[in-house]
Amino acid sequence: MPSILVLSASPSIESRTAALSDHLAQRLRQGGHQVRIRLVRELPPAALLAGDVTEAAIAEVVGEIAAADGVVVASPVFKAAYSGLLKTLLDLLPQFALAGKVVLPVLTGGSPAHVLALDYALRPVLSSLGAHHIVPGWFVLDQHIERTADGQVAHLQPESAKPLYEVVDVFSDTLSARSLGAAVPVS
Amino acid sequence: MPSILVLSASPSIESRTAALSDHLAQRLRQGGHQVRIRLVRELPPAALLAGDVTEAAIAEVVGEIAAADGVVVASPVFKAAYSGLLKTLLDLLPQFALAGKVVLPVLTGGSPAHVLALDYALRPVLSSLGAHHIVPGWFVLDQHIERTADGQVAHLQPESAKPLYEVVDVFSDTLSARSLGAAVPVS
Amino acid sequence: MPSILVLSASPSIESRTAALSDHLAQRLRQGGHQVRIRLVRELPPAALLAGDVTEAAIAEVVGEIAAADGVVVASPVFKAAYSGLLKTLLDLLPQFALAGKVVLPVLTGGSPAHVLALDYALRPVLSSLGAHHIVPGWFVLDQHIERTADGQVAHLQPESAKPLYEVVDVFSDTLSARSLGAAVPVS
Amino acid sequence: MPSILVLSASPSIESRTAALSDHLAQRLRQGGHQVRIRLVRELPPAALLAGDVTEAAIAEVVGEIAAADGVVVASPVFKAAYSGLLKTLLDLLPQFALAGKVVLPVLTGGSPAHVLALDYALRPVLSSLGAHHIVPGWFVLDQHIERTADGQVAHLQPESAKPLYEVVDVFSDTLSARSLGAAVPVS
Repeated sequence: MPSILVLSASPSIESRTAALSDHLAQRLRQGGHQVRIRLVRELPPAALLAGDVTEAAIAEVVGEIAAADGVVVASPVFKAAYSGLLKTLLDLLPQFALAGKVVLPVLTGGSPAHVLALDYALRPVLSSLGAHHIVPGWFVLDQHIERTADGQVAHLQPESAKPLYEVVDVFSDTLSARSLGAAVPVS
Repeated sequence: MPSILVLSASPSIESRTAALSDHLAQRLRQGGHQVRIRLVRELPPAALLAGDVTEAAIAEVVGEIAAADGVVVASPVFKAAYSGLLKTLLDLLPQFALAGKVVLPVLTGGSPAHVLALDYALRPVLSSLGAHHIVPGWFVLDQHIERTADGQVAHLQPESAKPLYEVVDVFSDTLSARSLGAAVPVS
Repeated sequence: MPSILVLSASPSIESRTAALSDHLAQRLRQGGHQVRIRLVRELPPAALLAGDVTEAAIAEVVGEIAAADGVVVASPVFKAAYSGLLKTLLDLLPQFALAGKVVLPVLTGGSPAHVLALDYALRPVLSSLGAHHIVPGWFVLDQHIERTADGQVAHLQPESAKPLYEVVDVFSDTLSARSLGAAVPVS
Repeated sequence: MPSILVLSASPSIESRTAALSDHLAQRLRQGGHQVRIRLVRELPPAALLAGDVTEAAIAEVVGEIAAADGVVVASPVFKAAYSGLLKTLLDLLPQFALAGKVVLPVLTGGSPAHVLALDYALRPVLSSLGAHHIVPGWFVLDQHIERTADGQVAHLQPESAKPLYEVVDVFSDTLSARSLGAAVPVS
């Protein structure tokens, strides 16, 4: 069973990115994957900013990334790019930390004017980490994410839900296919 | 006299970016400017990552940016882009925090393969902050920066020094010209 | 009097980009500039694609760019970037063809999702051409441009017109200031 | 047997990009694929620049792209991005012309300073065309490509050949795996 790590990188306590990450994790679990979510904002700030990989919690998440078959990278768009919070984590990873992995990039933002941040800002950074396969991602408009009182996704507007679920399912299928391929005896 | 703020955004204690920032500050002071350097790594980590602009030290640097006529943005290249440390600071600024300002982007990195991170990664973020004029910047190879024991620039290889000083002088002249222009009575 | 060249790079005969280029040229003329428009689609196709700078019409436009104080670069967005037509012209220019010039980038497109193509795709290419000062540009939504029967701009929706005129006026003022500056005896 | 189309987009008659395209085509044929090369510069210039998809040769190459399982996109780097010649062809394709396809981007250029043009300039455009899987690509330094008198690759420097062959083989394996997957009865 492929294992997936969801890196959710909003600095806000009440975060649409976090709600959406949870929502995607549920869908991926239903698709038969083992899924773990990491809120980057819960990592120790000083160690994160200093890139201190000897700190226990940082070392743990670095290990989880290394062990995952698939990684979902979810971030809000700030100032025409991914969050600085996300980048502080990516900065301390080994150069080819995503080698051999399938990666799904997901961004959230308040304006459709930020859509291209996914392909022009986030994807090049994920490429530089040696990702084997970055599947097509999706940018979800904040106003399409309705939340419950406890911060879960209550409803996703269909114009965001449909294309988002499509890329999530491509990610899921890609992981499953790799898993099957790996299980086939080669001789 | 134009005032300049140098934002130096390496997470390392022994940093070539910091040494270079100091070196540029000295040159700009000799050019008649009032220059202040801010090491982003000295800001309080938790407040920086949470985007807490009510925290005293964060509020102070936000105020310094608002007051500056020119801003030098210096960062190492990590994972094909600027440092996450830099982006955490830029993320918490008001949307048009660089409006009306002249900005000089400077990157340092270990390989010439990262040169385009300046124009493809850093400059779009500075543009989104409403910078009035982002002058041409420069990417300095780490190995061209020789340091003294106490972390100052001992020597800059000429193939980096020449084009770097050129963009610094364009930045300096642009600031001085704006300052003169502002002083001229309009009626 | 500063001279401006408008490079208008839509491949279509009935082009919103061309209508908008004309409209901006009129505004710039009213601002006291000498303005010439070049429709890139009227250049000889074979010479353009082959980068043949000895061809008369190509040589002429290369000379016009060299002689201009300011250049407006206007293109539709296709496939998340500027038009190929525009890039074929930029490709055949000398490496620092925009050195010393003020440049205004303007894009048109059918969806707000393409806004960031200006800063992530077009601006890095203009930077690589050595532009002295690329002022903030603007992305105009196709549906905000109403045209007359003969292809002129009949009306620009205010939500596009206001920010567009602002960047055009910054471009105009920047050119005028440089012109004045150049006229001052240095003694 | 997966079919591959190589789009080779240098405007030069004596082109390193074309020599390299040929070289890669040979390797892919040895890997069991059916490979066809298209030199974009041989397409009719006027139709290409006007985006005239009714022109016979243009219609033919559009059909070849539609029919291919894999597409290699090879271009020199000019002005910090792919060639305008390449973009004129991509511009006239249907919006999702690369949907369902595996794509390998390859750039050539005279300086390592242009490496990031692959991930920051070319890949976002290929993404916008709906490519199913853009595998990691490679940037080959011009001076690593030695040619024979008749324009073939005589020798590739090992520091370019090794990583280039790796991405080509990943591309080849990805295509073969998809082909096998498609052949497996789902029952």
